[in-house]
Amino acid sequence: MFSAADYDYMARALRLAEKGLFGTSPNPRVGCVIVQGGNIVGEGWHERAGTPHAEVHALRAAGNAAEGATAYVTLEPCSHHGRTPPCADALIGAKVDRVVVAMQDPNPLVAGQGLAKLQAAGIQVESGLLEMQAQELNIGFVSRMTRRRPWVRLKTASSLDGKTALNNGASFWITGDVARLDVHRLRARSCAILTGIGTVLADDPKMDVRDVETFRQPLRIVLDSSLRTPLNARILTTGKTLIVGAIADKEKIARLESAGAEVLILPDASGRVDFQHLLRELAEREVNELMIEAGCTLNGAWLNAGLVDEWVMYTAPLLLGDKARGLFALPELTEMTPRREVTIRDVTMVGRDIRIRALVSN
Amino acid sequence: MFSAADYDYMARALRLAEKGLFGTSPNPRVGCVIVQGGNIVGEGWHERAGTPHAEVHALRAAGNAAEGATAYVTLEPCSHHGRTPPCADALIGAKVDRVVVAMQDPNPLVAGQGLAKLQAAGIQVESGLLEMQAQELNIGFVSRMTRRRPWVRLKTASSLDGKTALNNGASFWITGDVARLDVHRLRARSCAILTGIGTVLADDPKMDVRDVETFRQPLRIVLDSSLRTPLNARILTTGKTLIVGAIADKEKIARLESAGAEVLILPDASGRVDFQHLLRELAEREVNELMIEAGCTLNGAWLNAGLVDEWVMYTAPLLLGDKARGLFALPELTEMTPRREVTIRDVTMVGRDIRIRALVSN
Repeated sequence: MFSAADYDYMARALRLAEKGLFGTSPNPRVGCVIVQGGNIVGEGWHERAGTPHAEVHALRAAGNAAEGATAYVTLEPCSHHGRTPPCADALIGAKVDRVVVAMQDPNPLVAGQGLAKLQAAGIQVESGLLEMQAQELNIGFVSRMTRRRPWVRLKTASSLDGKTALNNGASFWITGDVARLDVHRLRARSCAILTGIGTVLADDPKMDVRDVETFRQPLRIVLDSSLRTPLNARILTTGKTLIVGAIADKEKIARLESAGAEVLILPDASGRVDFQHLLRELAEREVNELMIEAGCTLNGAWLNAGLVDEWVMYTAPLLLGDKARGLFALPELTEMTPRREVTIRDVTMVGRDIRIRALVSN
Repeated sequence: MFSAADYDYMARALRLAEKGLFGTSPNPRVGCVIVQGGNIVGEGWHERAGTPHAEVHALRAAGNAAEGATAYVTLEPCSHHGRTPPCADALIGAKVDRVVVAMQDPNPLVAGQGLAKLQAAGIQVESGLLEMQAQELNIGFVSRMTRRRPWVRLKTASSLDGKTALNNGASFWITGDVARLDVHRLRARSCAILTGIGTVLADDPKMDVRDVETFRQPLRIVLDSSLRTPLNARILTTGKTLIVGAIADKEKIARLESAGAEVLILPDASGRVDFQHLLRELAEREVNELMIEAGCTLNGAWLNAGLVDEWVMYTAPLLLGDKARGLFALPELTEMTPRREVTIRDVTMVGRDIRIRALVSN
């Protein structure tokens, strides 16, 4: 169905889309390549929400050469008026002959309408080329559209024997510079970064994006059941921070709000923060990818709740011994069968450390 | 100094040498390629102690074509009468023009004598081509010759969060079939496999080589300070087993000996088994590579003693949680600085599991 050239052009469109990795959210990352008579006559990518979509950039570059051309787009062109006019209309107006998309719009309510509009205008439409890669690139957008919750990516940094800190709480950046930069890239692609009050009290992290070129900082979230976040915590000093508690203590709420934080009280039946409710809330706030950077207890709680989609594990070439703190606090197993399985997606060296990406089976 | 062709032929000689991985010990693994006028006229490898050396096989295959040829050998040819006559003499007798070796004999008492003998006979001699690879291939032989102790390779199998068994002791092969076979290949290349009485009592392992073609079983060693190994333990049922204790209880020794085991009492000052003494003893018994497959306590003790050279870590795509048993029992650290560092040599997928090979800094 697809030619080798089709694959090449779509791969190029995907690489272009990736340039928007840190910028497009809450929109998806999209790339577009327009080919006329075997030559690329225009290409572009979506850079930032509120600015033109990939197709518009590419069509502008192509000009009249778009007539009779094939457009490769990593995501079904939109058919509705959002902050910009519908791209399907722009492609029809430019009189392209053929549109190849990697994947349909993941929103089940609108999926296929852009393609239908193109087809109705007599344009040849094909879908599904390099679809897995396109899905992966917008894993958070797809999650929000199809599951009404963000993609939850949990990051850990540990020694090879699975230890994150000493028993006395002493910790530090266990991993090296290259891994640290890689973590900042993960942060930069996330819409929100979540940590726990334990980490805030112990390490006072800023949890912002550093050393990566980006024009936006993700939302910072602190899970803090009884609202103990110090008013001078560094996490409150930059950008927007959301404190999520479980006890509606008006005084504490007012104090945190006056320190610049937003406070949300989302208790579950047992008086802890309701993770499910929080994820629905974050989806409504258009959070595509949520990154969790927390300690053993909170890591274990999210894992145990079956709400972690992806685990990115950085492991440093050192050993801290069995007395040090572990990665996931989980209820003690007495049989091997209820253990939690993951699927390894890739393993790579980042500097002197190892990065393992795994999908969690929930 | 060396041409591209030289590299190719030596690489081939190294691949031939590797065919002896499971068979040559206590001898080193050695390969030889003889090249005359750009053609390989003979090649061979050492298959098994007591049988001809690599050079002899290669010279036999070359016949008269060896005259004026270049011989590539992965290890300096021997100059002394062992179980077979000196290979240096054989090369001189065959009138080769040039001998290229990857490395000298690691025994400091004899190193260079084989090369000197060749040179004295008017043969052009060069050394050091792909030396690191050759050293790696005979890492145990080199260790025994230069340090008078075996190369100590510790193997672990754990979940991604660094757990080897449940807290109640329940364990099993955590890793999959491919990793299991890989472990048997590690066993097959080892001269001896060491475990602890804890593992013997809990799991009753055979600790033999299975599913790998080999004509010899490594020596089994049980560290068992107070000689508690059951007389019907499976580890005593096949091949040769050495029980190393710290208490010279004559009755227990006699019983174990009557069950077929050899018993060695090597106490240190604190009444435990003296690891250093054991390693010297094993070197004298011509053990090149010692593999440790034990539990958290013994793993930690060897690591803490600074006697582990290499760690091969198999990690399975699952999580057991912080209550489960760890990899290394080590004294609790209160500062991050005295942590033990390793250097990662390679990371590879073995089936669905990950294998990490690391050298331990002692």
